[in-house]
Amino acid sequence: MHFTGKDIVDIRSLSVEEISFILRTAEEMKEISKRPVKKVPGLRGKTVVLLFHEPSTRTRLSFDIAAKRLSADCHSIAASSSSMTKGETLMDTARNIQAMNPDILVVRHSCSGAPRMLAGLLDASVINAGDGKHAHPSQALLDMMTVIEKKKRISGLKIAIIGDIAHSRVARSDIEGFTKMGASVVLSGPPAMIPLGIERLGGWVAQNVDEAMAGADVVMALRIQKERQQNFLFASEREYSKVYGITARRLEQAKKDVIVMHPGPVNRGLEVSPDVADGPWSVILDQVENGVAVRMALILILAGETEKKRAAKL
Amino acid sequence: MHFTGKDIVDIRSLSVEEISFILRTAEEMKEISKRPVKKVPGLRGKTVVLLFHEPSTRTRLSFDIAAKRLSADCHSIAASSSSMTKGETLMDTARNIQAMNPDILVVRHSCSGAPRMLAGLLDASVINAGDGKHAHPSQALLDMMTVIEKKKRISGLKIAIIGDIAHSRVARSDIEGFTKMGASVVLSGPPAMIPLGIERLGGWVAQNVDEAMAGADVVMALRIQKERQQNFLFASEREYSKVYGITARRLEQAKKDVIVMHPGPVNRGLEVSPDVADGPWSVILDQVENGVAVRMALILILAGETEKKRAAKL
Amino acid sequence: MHFTGKDIVDIRSLSVEEISFILRTAEEMKEISKRPVKKVPGLRGKTVVLLFHEPSTRTRLSFDIAAKRLSADCHSIAASSSSMTKGETLMDTARNIQAMNPDILVVRHSCSGAPRMLAGLLDASVINAGDGKHAHPSQALLDMMTVIEKKKRISGLKIAIIGDIAHSRVARSDIEGFTKMGASVVLSGPPAMIPLGIERLGGWVAQNVDEAMAGADVVMALRIQKERQQNFLFASEREYSKVYGITARRLEQAKKDVIVMHPGPVNRGLEVSPDVADGPWSVILDQVENGVAVRMALILILAGETEKKRAAKL
Repeated sequence: MHFTGKDIVDIRSLSVEEISFILRTAEEMKEISKRPVKKVPGLRGKTVVLLFHEPSTRTRLSFDIAAKRLSADCHSIAASSSSMTKGETLMDTARNIQAMNPDILVVRHSCSGAPRMLAGLLDASVINAGDGKHAHPSQALLDMMTVIEKKKRISGLKIAIIGDIAHSRVARSDIEGFTKMGASVVLSGPPAMIPLGIERLGGWVAQNVDEAMAGADVVMALRIQKERQQNFLFASEREYSKVYGITARRLEQAKKDVIVMHPGPVNRGLEVSPDVADGPWSVILDQVENGVAVRMALILILAGETEKKRAAKL
Repeated sequence: MHFTGKDIVDIRSLSVEEISFILRTAEEMKEISKRPVKKVPGLRGKTVVLLFHEPSTRTRLSFDIAAKRLSADCHSIAASSSSMTKGETLMDTARNIQAMNPDILVVRHSCSGAPRMLAGLLDASVINAGDGKHAHPSQALLDMMTVIEKKKRISGLKIAIIGDIAHSRVARSDIEGFTKMGASVVLSGPPAMIPLGIERLGGWVAQNVDEAMAGADVVMALRIQKERQQNFLFASEREYSKVYGITARRLEQAKKDVIVMHPGPVNRGLEVSPDVADGPWSVILDQVENGVAVRMALILILAGETEKKRAAKL
Repeated sequence: MHFTGKDIVDIRSLSVEEISFILRTAEEMKEISKRPVKKVPGLRGKTVVLLFHEPSTRTRLSFDIAAKRLSADCHSIAASSSSMTKGETLMDTARNIQAMNPDILVVRHSCSGAPRMLAGLLDASVINAGDGKHAHPSQALLDMMTVIEKKKRISGLKIAIIGDIAHSRVARSDIEGFTKMGASVVLSGPPAMIPLGIERLGGWVAQNVDEAMAGADVVMALRIQKERQQNFLFASEREYSKVYGITARRLEQAKKDVIVMHPGPVNRGLEVSPDVADGPWSVILDQVENGVAVRMALILILAGETEKKRAAKL
């Protein structure tokens, strides 16, 4: 397998072969994090810059750990969104960073499309760590990795995604990824949270949550961002958890060996009941662990490419 | 000496032998920081995560330097306390970090008991870097190291701790530590700053500051947190410094070779007069230097243990 | 060449030979950042601490990348200026950091003279990363490096610095540096932005912007800090850009092979028109790239010295 892309900006741009290659590489990477010495010298002397224009603890830490376990140097810039209201300014910031010769720029930005714009502009590889409502490809890849670990395959599975589809870049990337790998993805949530035309990404919208849950192999609950509740997207937290919250009883509708996923952080008792979050169905912490492995794989594959390309240029 | 604990959550849990072992290890570590190449490869490939839920510059920097001088990777998370009001959320955060396979989690938290709770929950070693008013064991250990350096012993010394005992986790850990190692610890401060029953930790309360100072080998001034002054714990800064401030004149009551300690940062002219802070009595900067050494020792001892334990599991 | 200084606090303190030595070292360093493995082991086990008391993204990142490409450990402290209103407190902070045995302290501070004060106080080398309106020597050095790269010399060139001279530490360091290296430095800007007596630093003030531009080899536009506009230092942004903004048409007055510099970040359309910022004249991104090289050179030279001095002491 020869990975030809310079960047990872969304799932749509990746072929089935490329996704499979990333996931195989991630499995190898995962083993490194279980060794007593969790570090390989592969990317010594490479520079990774994390440019996060939205607050993040977990994703940033995950990328930072991934980079350092590959012996890369990792630098983190937490720009306040205030100085970033103009796309022009983001471009200038990125050009400045580029001038410092990084190998990889990991970008999180509140504007959909910002990472793709930067990818077109820069010689460095760009990894999208979440942009607006658009895409979160490393999350979708770690979700696919987790499903394969638990189910040995993706093709033919029924995957139910429950909750706020409209505001979720995780949902968009997961729909595209799981569909591309052959799963049937079904969506359910309050009407205001199901965007018109979402089926074009590959999933289908269930009549109600029962239809979505029925016989599901995987149930993925999305995070409710409570600050949006003032927009009255659903009646109340109590109503939401009653209708859409994943409880042990609701899981009885799904396959016996169903697994429950969540991109985190979980609002316990809202999207997922505490007994489910900590119960045998939950693979939420596997997702986090696989996140480091997937990000190691992405950094390794892209930094390798960059090196090859540079060698070809010189 | 075989160190059997997984965590360092307070001084109370450590035996005299364990404290002595840590302090001997710290002496070895101190030598490393004086070399031209201040780095040993011992913990290459280990992951240390600093999870600080209270602002800190010095203690965080001290742990960060300690980890890197041992060649460990060190990651810092400065969580705003706002997202951490519920213990449940702290637990979820910690579980997420755990899933990324750290070896050591260094925790500072405004809630007493938070590090102990995490220690019970996680496979990773937990080091308490200060929790509420409860404990600050690495500070007490560096204080003990400093006293041993200067006085060759702890046993039999008179150690006066002056100031706001009530709000000080440093005081609690120091009282327990120095008492355990055989010193006589005497406390003095404004009545509102001496909690009822504090003697149970091992020290005794002096009638007045003169009784505390008389013949003391060590005088430790505690930091006054000025923002608490609105609670009228003492009449005024001027009054406080007049009665409890450590001045050259007041030190005449102590032993001739008395040393003055302070956990920092010093409010000059309040707890300690400038001539004392910079004078021959002061070992305040020795404390800071020993802080790095003690933290190197703690990280080295615990990361070694973790490795052994993991090896035993595999 | 034997570099005898312990610190880099301003350009004035450097001899022509020292500046040339730094710039030659920087050229060697620049090559490292273009390798596939951008890292040399020279400063393994050295400790660099970045103490920034003013917000900074670029300069901090530049120093951080520079330190790590030399294999030094680099620690960053972003102190809020609030806790730093008293010089005494800065001294105590610095003494505390010193006690942790750093080799180099990189300091940015809003008070002119703060780095020099620390340099006199500390054993560690101090690099001034910008203090008040006083000096920004690493910026001037990277500017000189860029001019030498493009023009093969500094001596005999006409260098026009346009804009807010009064509030610019970059301008002060550049005037001193370029003058010392034999250039003729001419200044132009709104009257309220040209401080009385600025000629004593070495440059001369043009009657108007046309005189400054006429036959210039280098045009350096300074950043307008828009938050100062409330002080009515110039009539309006539109007026400013009309009179002082560097446009393609205005560049016709300069030498044919004129280069345009800017310390960044650029306010496009204000100090520099977009076509100039991105056009063939612009060497703004070369400045950024050379910034890493110059900072690598400064860190390498000073950390080497420190080691030698310590070896002499032991």
